[in-house]
Amino acid sequence: MPLLTALPPDALRDYHQQIRGRYDAFAARGVKLNLTRGKPAAEQLDLSAALLDLPHANDFMAGNVDCRNYGELQGLADLRALLAPVFGVTGDRVILGNNSSLSLMHDAVAFSLLKGTCDSERPWSKESRVAFLCPVPGYDRHFSICQEFGIEMIPVPLTDTGPDMDLVEKLVAADPQIKGMWNIPKYSNPSGTVYAQQTIERLAKMPTAARDFRLFWDNAYAVHHLTPERIEIANIDEACARHGNPNRAFIFGSTSKVTFAGAGVGLFAGSKDNVAWYLKRIEKRTIGGDKVNQLRHLRLLKNTDGIAALMDRHRAIVAPKFDKVLEIFTEHLGNSGVAEWTTPKGGYFITLDVAAGCAKQVVKLAKAAGVELTPAGATHPYGNDPDDRTIRIAPTFPAIAEVSQAAEGVVLAVLLAATEKLLAK
Amino acid sequence: MPLLTALPPDALRDYHQQIRGRYDAFAARGVKLNLTRGKPAAEQLDLSAALLDLPHANDFMAGNVDCRNYGELQGLADLRALLAPVFGVTGDRVILGNNSSLSLMHDAVAFSLLKGTCDSERPWSKESRVAFLCPVPGYDRHFSICQEFGIEMIPVPLTDTGPDMDLVEKLVAADPQIKGMWNIPKYSNPSGTVYAQQTIERLAKMPTAARDFRLFWDNAYAVHHLTPERIEIANIDEACARHGNPNRAFIFGSTSKVTFAGAGVGLFAGSKDNVAWYLKRIEKRTIGGDKVNQLRHLRLLKNTDGIAALMDRHRAIVAPKFDKVLEIFTEHLGNSGVAEWTTPKGGYFITLDVAAGCAKQVVKLAKAAGVELTPAGATHPYGNDPDDRTIRIAPTFPAIAEVSQAAEGVVLAVLLAATEKLLAK
Repeated sequence: MPLLTALPPDALRDYHQQIRGRYDAFAARGVKLNLTRGKPAAEQLDLSAALLDLPHANDFMAGNVDCRNYGELQGLADLRALLAPVFGVTGDRVILGNNSSLSLMHDAVAFSLLKGTCDSERPWSKESRVAFLCPVPGYDRHFSICQEFGIEMIPVPLTDTGPDMDLVEKLVAADPQIKGMWNIPKYSNPSGTVYAQQTIERLAKMPTAARDFRLFWDNAYAVHHLTPERIEIANIDEACARHGNPNRAFIFGSTSKVTFAGAGVGLFAGSKDNVAWYLKRIEKRTIGGDKVNQLRHLRLLKNTDGIAALMDRHRAIVAPKFDKVLEIFTEHLGNSGVAEWTTPKGGYFITLDVAAGCAKQVVKLAKAAGVELTPAGATHPYGNDPDDRTIRIAPTFPAIAEVSQAAEGVVLAVLLAATEKLLAK
Repeated sequence: MPLLTALPPDALRDYHQQIRGRYDAFAARGVKLNLTRGKPAAEQLDLSAALLDLPHANDFMAGNVDCRNYGELQGLADLRALLAPVFGVTGDRVILGNNSSLSLMHDAVAFSLLKGTCDSERPWSKESRVAFLCPVPGYDRHFSICQEFGIEMIPVPLTDTGPDMDLVEKLVAADPQIKGMWNIPKYSNPSGTVYAQQTIERLAKMPTAARDFRLFWDNAYAVHHLTPERIEIANIDEACARHGNPNRAFIFGSTSKVTFAGAGVGLFAGSKDNVAWYLKRIEKRTIGGDKVNQLRHLRLLKNTDGIAALMDRHRAIVAPKFDKVLEIFTEHLGNSGVAEWTTPKGGYFITLDVAAGCAKQVVKLAKAAGVELTPAGATHPYGNDPDDRTIRIAPTFPAIAEVSQAAEGVVLAVLLAATEKLLAK
């Protein structure tokens, strides 16, 4: 693999011709592959096949609660108790939702806009301006919620240890209109970044001009390890409480990528006051979540060991796909000087950074060759990656042979875009 | 049964003593009965016991959709097609939600406040004032949504044919801040009122000062008949379209009282533009509802006949409880001059109107005797029944022997409160 940025013009032209030929040959295969979204593969869903029959006839009572009927706004106590330690809280500070933690995040924003948080002087919608800090690269659906509601997004670079805390501290201390910050603290989407203990400590401790500032703590990949190392992050709830900011974190999680992506159980967790506030809001919205599905999950997962064992089986399916992509990237892009990528230890994504100004072209070329990628820019607020270099790779859904082919297509698109860019200089 | 209002003072005092004695004897029994909420009885939930095992292993595909995975924002097409005719629309104009239509109503209000409807000039939250018409007696959870968001509630009397349309037409024509109106058009909660064809026609046709006025059409009891007569109401969607107001109705429904109250499928339906608008909003909130539960419902209900047959079985359980209450009311309150009640042909409630100024006292007395009733006032906006006379009776949940006892307790509380009131004059 030549260092493309160092090639003399003639060699570069030759190399471009060669890549062009390989790319055309790949495109001629007529593959139709998709690396766009973080969806589990069917094989992963099969791991929870028992849910299709659970909870079984005559099994509908949880203690003295008839799961089939109305009620239990907060969700079944036993499932709350089971999931609470995963998110560093106690069961009384968990609220179970229906099948999507994204919905709970959306609603937490909507409730804050319409009613204000328990620490707000007024509803956020009555503020002249509301802004959120957005570590980049980040999750497009977080950004879409802000965009939907006219919340200004302020990008903050994500480093290897989490968001650039010097910048974060400076921003939140100065601007009382910064009301929130998105965080995927573990195996972040799409970089796989794990927030360091010191980062979490600083987030919990930092003075904020807005007294109702909230960390939207999307711990989506809490148990989604890709290596035998089960990384633990610092407990945000405990840290916030210790620093006198007990209500700072809105914690979100779900079983979506533990059991069924479309039929799991989402959860909200937080301080006593945050939970009381959230319950007060959803009390107007529902008489309770789907408790039969909660019972189903309780029967399937059973206990903490049950969750861990299930996640090991996910890893056995998912990790080889990540390994395959990384192997192909290393083989074909290593030392090329035109691409860098992350090596996540968990989660659902790899971030591929290509030569500046090339991401859109890479996605376009890949698509023309039959490999669909997440649109370039999706990793940034307003879909705007100012360097046009970051691409999210989602290798979980296709079969490994397809992942391998798709990675090959991506590699060719990267090399072709890069050589074209270099030749145009 | 003497006409209490016509009794001479001495006879009234004697009667009061007699009722006091019967009431005390009832209270001494120490019963603990609950007629507060419209919950199905366990026996009704048993009718859908098959849901506890459905959809069964290996049954997770709906056409080419893997119900276990993400996707299908609008919900499974086959279930939409099955439920659509119940609500007078086509499947392409139905959106399936999760387990609560109340949530969909709440969200329709929240979305309108934060974003405006597809016909709004600005988000409702940017209006100086937003008001809803509230037919009374009505459903307390509708009113709670308005109260939560500071929406002014304007009560409108419900007549035997639906809301007082002369008043409704006058109000909506004059006040551009009246943006919505709650309606339970069939077997209304709590009166059992069925909107007449002419009422629905006028609601669809009436000029409104607000061009983004919406009928919140909560057709919660569409198939919940209590008699062999399966009453059909006029099609609000068709009527609105015919009168050039195609986007006027937001239609809501659910299977909550068809299958499992806590684990059914809710739905939103409406015009093409309303559906597009609603999808655009929930696209920010979720990747899709719980499709496994949708499939479960499809497998259980199968077709329109399946729904009708299931509802007949519900009726066989529920109707005798209503009959028992009505029988006891007639026997003990008939011609008393101090109570009137509705005889619903469907739905979940009976409205009991007691002597003016007595409802709170009746609820209090009933409670002291071991019979819990919905709080007096709950049927009116802000919990304020200006005449203090309307009480909601919900006879579905307890067993019939308990319903019978509870009705007896209610009767004694009504008679005691009325005689006390008359004696105090």
